[in-house]
Amino acid sequence: MIEHSIPAASAQRFIRAAFESQGFDAGAADKVAALMVEADLQGSDGHGIIRLPQYIKRIRAGGINKDPHIRVVREQAATALVDGDNGMGHLVVSFATELAIGKARQSGMAWVNTRMSNHAGPASLYVRRVVAEGLICLYFAVGNANHLAPWGGTELMLSTNPIAVGLPTRDEPPVILDMATTMAAYGKVKAKAKRGEMMPPGWMIDRQGQPLLDPARSAEGLLLPIGGYKGYGLALVVGLLAGTLGGAAMGRQVVDFNADHTSLTNTGQAVAVIDPAAFGDAEEFRKSADTVVRDIRSSERMSGVDRIWLPGEQSFEKHARYTAGGFPLSQGLLDELNALAQELDIEPLIQMASA
Amino acid sequence: MIEHSIPAASAQRFIRAAFESQGFDAGAADKVAALMVEADLQGSDGHGIIRLPQYIKRIRAGGINKDPHIRVVREQAATALVDGDNGMGHLVVSFATELAIGKARQSGMAWVNTRMSNHAGPASLYVRRVVAEGLICLYFAVGNANHLAPWGGTELMLSTNPIAVGLPTRDEPPVILDMATTMAAYGKVKAKAKRGEMMPPGWMIDRQGQPLLDPARSAEGLLLPIGGYKGYGLALVVGLLAGTLGGAAMGRQVVDFNADHTSLTNTGQAVAVIDPAAFGDAEEFRKSADTVVRDIRSSERMSGVDRIWLPGEQSFEKHARYTAGGFPLSQGLLDELNALAQELDIEPLIQMASA
Repeated sequence: MIEHSIPAASAQRFIRAAFESQGFDAGAADKVAALMVEADLQGSDGHGIIRLPQYIKRIRAGGINKDPHIRVVREQAATALVDGDNGMGHLVVSFATELAIGKARQSGMAWVNTRMSNHAGPASLYVRRVVAEGLICLYFAVGNANHLAPWGGTELMLSTNPIAVGLPTRDEPPVILDMATTMAAYGKVKAKAKRGEMMPPGWMIDRQGQPLLDPARSAEGLLLPIGGYKGYGLALVVGLLAGTLGGAAMGRQVVDFNADHTSLTNTGQAVAVIDPAAFGDAEEFRKSADTVVRDIRSSERMSGVDRIWLPGEQSFEKHARYTAGGFPLSQGLLDELNALAQELDIEPLIQMASA
Repeated sequence: MIEHSIPAASAQRFIRAAFESQGFDAGAADKVAALMVEADLQGSDGHGIIRLPQYIKRIRAGGINKDPHIRVVREQAATALVDGDNGMGHLVVSFATELAIGKARQSGMAWVNTRMSNHAGPASLYVRRVVAEGLICLYFAVGNANHLAPWGGTELMLSTNPIAVGLPTRDEPPVILDMATTMAAYGKVKAKAKRGEMMPPGWMIDRQGQPLLDPARSAEGLLLPIGGYKGYGLALVVGLLAGTLGGAAMGRQVVDFNADHTSLTNTGQAVAVIDPAAFGDAEEFRKSADTVVRDIRSSERMSGVDRIWLPGEQSFEKHARYTAGGFPLSQGLLDELNALAQELDIEPLIQMASA
């Protein structure tokens, strides 16, 4: 399959132009574009520019507030509830993240929930932002479509509700775990479908419990939770923490944003920030984290294994490589984005990329 | 296999007497005993009275401080670091939990780490305590022996580092998830060994990657993480949050308390408490949680499945049943406990049980 290398700056200009064509102001359009490109740069190819056509479809259908009044509706020393006013999730979660950072610096830690938010791309975008400040981040979100059944069930009651945790280090890349509570995130299923590839066994089953390998048939299937009933339990508690706690959608209330482009999603996310300085010398903590990372990386390997990776390390390396040389994009997705460009009357991505 | 039903009060008296025989004051002995019995009552049979011989062995070897000065060493509005002074983990984590409850009521949420703590039994004991106050709890701990290799590795660098989350409901049983980040907790492996049963495939592999089914050979094997590299990532970040952050042991520093009864374990736990009232009407939250629970319980089942369970629901039912009729104990464990009684010159459990 032909892959293109897209420079970050070209992609950001393209996405910004797409949002501006829909009436977003330049600042908001640029902020969303920068975060979407960051997703592609870190290798989260299911959550970056691939989502643009769907976002634009929802905006054109009136399903997103282009000029939201994002605000704090409740607040204590260590907590806040942010109402996103149905704005783009990237803007809402960025607001919540900055708020949590400020509160954690005051109180040692903070926990901020969002409601009336939307899909915000990969959790690790926001976790990395927090970790860059030398702080620890935990992130929980309700996914934007239910693809998971309770353990023993066949009804799609839960989403892939991700958990992300990031911790700063001193000389090593930060530890950034960002995982769906299912064996595969639905974004990865979509990316497989876009690339015309089959899924490995263990990602999905059909309603009779048989393996489902064709991502084009994913609507007929159930994603499998990690660790069986354990992953079901994680998806449930993440949904209660990120959704129900803040008055956002969870369970049967979740709107399938792949199929429905107009209903309010009332998406919820939870961002928790911990200041290591509240527990001791922050520099010592970072050194200790470095030691753990190095001990694990240099530990004995199974035969045939070249390297032991730490969570986030592969993304960290991709980010450096893609920032320098562009991120990969399939011909199929490029065609789709350029067709969108024509529809929106903006410059196509390929021209910007080759400029 | 012959199983006995042990009344909670008998077990608590027996455990209290065992600790008092070692010089614990009555209050501390009773508190540890009550929590250990609670573990058995909720069905956590790998974490209750089964641990008594090992605890006593460590106490007699001088590996536990019988009269610890458990104290707060650092504090902010929403955080604290508790030094357990090498006391029994049950006492240290109870102290941390009460502190976190108080702080969460003031600041909306709180996060308390322990260091110089010890094995404290199942996470859900403390989570249930928090949930009984109408509050939400997240709990993370570093396990007391490394049984898990990094993904692709063969060296035991990580423990089963558990995650527990509890949320209050209104009329339904609370949602209480308590899970090792491995397919099976090591306590379950030990319980299988005690009962002379084989493990199911998927719990452990040997260092060549082959399934290991005999729990008596568990020292040769590696526990498998949930979701492959995902569970490895979870075990790692839980260890960094519960251990490294508070200056407690993690990775290579972890002391195998099954083999070493004298070295300081410097165990770390993290207890986070969230007050739902900081995010909205607490009663409304509990009602919404009830709705999620009922929607999931009544959702469509796979053929052959009688019931969909919520996390914690089976423990909740066991707790009611075992409180009324006693908890089950194998003949093998009873013999071991009665041999211990003779050694400690206290009344045997069986006499108390049949009294």
